[in-house]
Parts: sequence; C-alpha cells; structure tokens
Amino acid sequence: MVIRAHSGRRPGDSGTRDAILAAARRQFAELGYDRTSMRQVAIEAGVDPTLVSHFHGSKKQLFLAVVELPFQPAKVLPMLLAGDRQKIGARLARFALSVLESEQGRSRMIGLIRAATSEPAAAEVIRELITRELLIPLAEGIGSDDAAYRASLVASQIVGMAMARYIVAVEPLASRDPASVADAIAPTLQHYLTDDLSPHRS
Amino acid sequence: MVIRAHSGRRPGDSGTRDAILAAARRQFAELGYDRTSMRQVAIEAGVDPTLVSHFHGSKKQLFLAVVELPFQPAKVLPMLLAGDRQKIGARLARFALSVLESEQGRSRMIGLIRAATSEPAAAEVIRELITRELLIPLAEGIGSDDAAYRASLVASQIVGMAMARYIVAVEPLASRDPASVADAIAPTLQHYLTDDLSPHRS
Repeated sequence: MVIRAHSGRRPGDSGTRDAILAAARRQFAELGYDRTSMRQVAIEAGVDPTLVSHFHGSKKQLFLAVVELPFQPAKVLPMLLAGDRQKIGARLARFALSVLESEQGRSRMIGLIRAATSEPAAAEVIRELITRELLIPLAEGIGSDDAAYRASLVASQIVGMAMARYIVAVEPLASRDPASVADAIAPTLQHYLTDDLSPHRS
Repeated sequence: MVIRAHSGRRPGDSGTRDAILAAARRQFAELGYDRTSMRQVAIEAGVDPTLVSHFHGSKKQLFLAVVELPFQPAKVLPMLLAGDRQKIGARLARFALSVLESEQGRSRMIGLIRAATSEPAAAEVIRELITRELLIPLAEGIGSDDAAYRASLVASQIVGMAMARYIVAVEPLASRDPASVADAIAPTLQHYLTDDLSPHRS
C-alpha cells in the first residue's frame, strides 16, 4: 500500500470529500467497523486527519455517510408491492435471494451484518438506515394494521437467511438451489405481511 | 487486571487446562474471536504460551473447546419434540424466545453470532457446533423427509430474530412482548418443520 500522508490538499478541494469517502468505504468494508480508524482513513485519502472530522464529525457519522443497503428500496419496493397481494411473499422471497446470490449484494449484506454485530454504535447506524430506507417504506407499502411490526418480522427472516446460508453456511441450506429456498421462505414472508399474527388471542 | 506471567505451573498440573479454558472463555466472549490471542490467553491463565498450543493446538481448536450453545439440546429437544406434532412450532418459538430473553442465553447467542460474522475460521467452528449439537438432533427428532434442511430453515429464523430484535434492535420488533413475538414466528417454524416446502412444484 502506498501511504500518502498529507498530500497538500486543502479544505474545500472538491476531491477531498470524495477521497475521504472512498477510503472510508474501502476500510469499513475490509476491516470492519471497529478496526477502521479516522486516522487511517485520512492517511489513505491523503488528507490531514483533522479534515476527516471537519467534514464528517465522528466515526459513527462517517460510517453513516458510506453505509448502503445492497439495493435501492425506492426503485424496488413499488414493483414488489404492486400486483396480487397474496403473492407479495413470493416476490419478496425471490428478490431477497437474487440479491444474496449476487456477489455485490451478498458482500454488502454481510458487511452490514458484520458491522452491526461488532459494536453498538455501528448497530445504531444500521438500525437507522434500515428503518428509514427499508422498513418505513415497506410498512407504508403494506399499509395494513401493525405494518411496521410486519416489516421488521420480514427483515428478521431475510437477515437470518443471510446468516445461516451465506455466513455460517449450514448445510443443506447453504447448497440448496436459490429457487427452492425462495419457495420455502415465501409463505413465511406472506404470513408476516398479511396473516393475523396472534390468532389464538384475537 | 493482574497479569501473572508464567506462574510456574508445569504441564500436567491439574489446574492448567482449566485456567487456560477459563481465560479463553472470558477473552473470546469479551474481545471476540479475532481480537483474542493465544498469547494473551496464556498470560491471563498464568501459564507459558507454549502450553496453550500444547493442550489445545490452534486458536480455532481452543475456540471449539470453549464455545457453547445457550442451552443443552440433549435435555431440551426431546421435550420440545414430544407431544402434538402440529404444535412443535409454537413450543420451539416459545423456547427460543425464553432463551433469548434470559441474560445469559442472549449474551451467548450474541457471542456466537459475533464470532461467526467476524472470521471464516470462527464461522466454521460454529457451523460444526450447531450442526452436531443442534441441527442433527433436531432433524432426527423431526424424522420426516428433508429433515436436515427443515432444521436449518428453523435455525435461520431463530438467528434472524436474535439479530433483528436483540442486536440491531429494530422497532417495533425489539420492544414487542416476547409472547407476541413467539406467536408471530410459531407458524413459520411449524411451516418449516411439517409443511410441503415447494408446493407448486410437487
């Protein structure tokens, strides 16, 4: 690695922000949240360390600036939610598997899970991100009673699938074809989205 | 912390193994897999570093010696699997929530998830552990077609619940009462255990 400490970029240089974000994105992805430091990000970006906090505040805020979901909910959710309401579970399940089967999608999802488990500050950032970008829009799309709770139950199964199949890789789940796995979890997601969730109490 | 480097214990001392295991258990739980080192375990245990590898081989083997599920499957599974087959999902869901609601159970579960996400070597140890201790006995208890796959699907929802409710703490899932959450996931676990998992293909 070539270390360019303090290359002479000044505050306000148009490239400074981008260089910091690129370095942060790379280090958070490669090292995880707790082993990434503002100082090493500055060194890789070739800027003075004070500029990193000048532009981005804390490490937590820097993480928030670069963390991304593995897809764009605003584009995807309307398509998934349109059409037959009794088949949303199947559409969501197929979509989740397609994201997790793609290399980029899987590596982002694993990055999110790794960061969330490593430190409470990172978990908080990820909670804010998925609540704002995913759970609230999904709940609005569902539009039924208790929609936010339903959305969070859906998320629990999808995250659990990512853990079990791709991170821990338990068998035979890890080697089953994606279409079969989508078939298996589709009724689960449908249940969370449209069923009565506490039938024997109602 | 009092550091007792090389206290004079000799190989074969009855306490040496136990001291190493206790130190390893504490450090893996507190620091996570990748920040725990054989050397620091030796220092905390007050033994010569060579004794750690003498007794336990690699760091991975040392981890395997101390990692534990948050409950004893041999005691619990027979009770959960006995009785009405159509209510296994409900019994498993209530049991999973009761483990995750206890402080010790939750902290062990989080420790397992944290270790599994931190490094492939730790994930492999945890895969071996849950396959041998949990998934195979559960599959044998289910005894139906594709039982191992069914057991791994059950594990995916329980792990996902641990992540979403206790680690990322998404709302309103995180603050819902445990009994309601058990009600919500019971049909999911039942589906994985006893339903046809690819109905439109059969």
